[in-house]
Amino acid sequence: MFTKDGGPQPADFADVRATNLAVVLRHLRINAPCSRANIAAATGLNKATVSSLVTDLIGRRLVREVGMSEKSIGRPAMMLVLDGSPYAAIGLEVNADYLTAVALDLAGERLLSWRRSFAGASSAPGPAIASLAALAKRAIAKMVREERRVLGLTVAVPGLVDPDGVIELAPNLGWHQVDLRKSLLSALQEPAFPLLVENDANLAVLAEQRFGGQGSANLVYLAGGAGIGAGIIADGRLLQGNRNFAGEFGHLPIDPAGPLCGCGRHGCVESLAGLGALIRRALPEATVSPSEFGPQVDEIHRLAKAGDARVLDALAATGRHLGHGLSMLTNLINPEFVALGGYFTVLAPWLIPDASRELVTRSVAGAGGGTRIIASALDSSAAAAGGATHVLDAIDAGALPTP
Amino acid sequence: MFTKDGGPQPADFADVRATNLAVVLRHLRINAPCSRANIAAATGLNKATVSSLVTDLIGRRLVREVGMSEKSIGRPAMMLVLDGSPYAAIGLEVNADYLTAVALDLAGERLLSWRRSFAGASSAPGPAIASLAALAKRAIAKMVREERRVLGLTVAVPGLVDPDGVIELAPNLGWHQVDLRKSLLSALQEPAFPLLVENDANLAVLAEQRFGGQGSANLVYLAGGAGIGAGIIADGRLLQGNRNFAGEFGHLPIDPAGPLCGCGRHGCVESLAGLGALIRRALPEATVSPSEFGPQVDEIHRLAKAGDARVLDALAATGRHLGHGLSMLTNLINPEFVALGGYFTVLAPWLIPDASRELVTRSVAGAGGGTRIIASALDSSAAAAGGATHVLDAIDAGALPTP
Repeated sequence: MFTKDGGPQPADFADVRATNLAVVLRHLRINAPCSRANIAAATGLNKATVSSLVTDLIGRRLVREVGMSEKSIGRPAMMLVLDGSPYAAIGLEVNADYLTAVALDLAGERLLSWRRSFAGASSAPGPAIASLAALAKRAIAKMVREERRVLGLTVAVPGLVDPDGVIELAPNLGWHQVDLRKSLLSALQEPAFPLLVENDANLAVLAEQRFGGQGSANLVYLAGGAGIGAGIIADGRLLQGNRNFAGEFGHLPIDPAGPLCGCGRHGCVESLAGLGALIRRALPEATVSPSEFGPQVDEIHRLAKAGDARVLDALAATGRHLGHGLSMLTNLINPEFVALGGYFTVLAPWLIPDASRELVTRSVAGAGGGTRIIASALDSSAAAAGGATHVLDAIDAGALPTP
Repeated sequence: MFTKDGGPQPADFADVRATNLAVVLRHLRINAPCSRANIAAATGLNKATVSSLVTDLIGRRLVREVGMSEKSIGRPAMMLVLDGSPYAAIGLEVNADYLTAVALDLAGERLLSWRRSFAGASSAPGPAIASLAALAKRAIAKMVREERRVLGLTVAVPGLVDPDGVIELAPNLGWHQVDLRKSLLSALQEPAFPLLVENDANLAVLAEQRFGGQGSANLVYLAGGAGIGAGIIADGRLLQGNRNFAGEFGHLPIDPAGPLCGCGRHGCVESLAGLGALIRRALPEATVSPSEFGPQVDEIHRLAKAGDARVLDALAATGRHLGHGLSMLTNLINPEFVALGGYFTVLAPWLIPDASRELVTRSVAGAGGGTRIIASALDSSAAAAGGATHVLDAIDAGALPTP
């Protein structure tokens, strides 16, 4: 009703058909196996249209017939399922301490999920891009060996990514003005499929929306690591902003008297609620280094479960600062859920109570405007899975592979 | 590409026709007078389709023919313009110190613009709603006398408005849980047209987008008054959030050590950058009361132009706090423009320099993520004009009046 986007665009019958092909595909993803008649009944499309659309989808090898249903009454019907076996969507993530790769088929099933530790924080962009390209090549090669066509590859980066795929700034990788998309395109010899680069949290929230099971159109994913990025879905769509720089949650300036942040400012959310701040509170003897995050978070988790007072206090303090930052999201964006992702997920049971109290206290709308803080349903491959989800979303939006 | 909204919905030829009717209507609003051939050439719709659509629009009295063009070559063509003379869209605003009413025709021309001072801050909801209903009736009666059909009426309120039109909280009116929509529906004897209630800044930003001339899809309007509300348009659509509580800019908690806010919290943007804070800095002898805002802002404006040092310092300090708050918007939402509206508009030349410097300093993206702070192009009837614009937007989205 509020849609403006320069106003509605002229539509024609090709638009209608592309839209309806996507509708049938989405219905099958959720409800397969089902018959042409089931689809017609559920979507409101007439049976002749559904038959024509299904024939098209079978021709594209997106759908296949799996035999007749056993029905107690009436004629048995030919049942349909998603095929998509000849296709793959690939996502990669580069972060301060690891690289990940995920490939999904059209039904969202995992075809591969790789993770390797990686000294991203101490690598120059060149070697980092070479490692990323090598990982991409291995993932693509595996899909090709399985006789799958790669429909797209999207790379997740913890930083500001402009609409052309240039990394304007990735503080925890030490990157500034790195044209990652261009470098990868040449490293992969200009692949035939779309290759895109996006902010890690922006991609993770797409995976949270599709696989997290909350079914919300107003969702935020917080990528808890060296930094804290936010991926925001508002009214069903990713919030990107004018230059694709939305979601810089970690650097919201919440306390002018706060500690120095890695960005050179004082009192950013990250400096108070980031993993570094938590480790300094919980494990004062530890050195804060991205390469140590995994073991240190495991140790904090172990001590929290054991009821260690200092660690519980550290988690409570971190939760309060997180809740202060999240009250900005509630007041400005009013999401339904905020999913704590990355290294926050395993610590969520100890972060959420204080974060939620602080959120409610600092939100002008009653009961925190209804915003609930939850643990992400995803694991540490969230951003890479989001990269692959990004490819699937394009297909759901009607950009179907050609036969 | 990222569109999810529960996924694409089945489309049919009726959708296509409604979409294309709206396309022709919008083209005429911007380009009239023009011929059927002009429209076909500009929209890519074929001539037969355009002729059929135009016939429909003429039947709805949305378009009319104004005679043949004088053409140097070829046959002269019948020229078309928006008609819409039988229609009116009405917007009302209730605020702490005034009521306004605006009516627009379908071309966005003003049919009426009324403002009366009103002790909203000291009125109980009952009498306030009675005054509002009386104003609505006078506006409707005027449109009826002019033989115009009212297509809709939208009321702007400075507070949290839930999706049913219930005012959850309007601190500067002293309202809590007021079912304004229901009360107005009964006061107006259940009118035949849609009657809606929305947050004032959410409506003002629609008017800023349509009439402000920035043509941006990522825009924020700040309603500067007793409070500071934000209306946010992201990717061309109003950002409303899960419970329609988005845009509570004035109560972002930016300084834990800050002064007490009217909401009972400390360090809200409003307590540091609101009109009350500005008046206390600029006119320390003055009493802060919404009924005095008009004259006091005029006095501050006069003294600023005269170079009064204390007033200039007060405006600079207010601008810095405003910029601190706006850096939250830039980091989270990354808008292209922030338009200073309400009482801020006339003071914008003195607020913008310090606000912009602070915004850039506190934004993690370089150059403030490209966010520019500007004076609103609208006057104090912005929210009421936005209410009427809201009605026009529904028509542009394809909800055309029946013949």
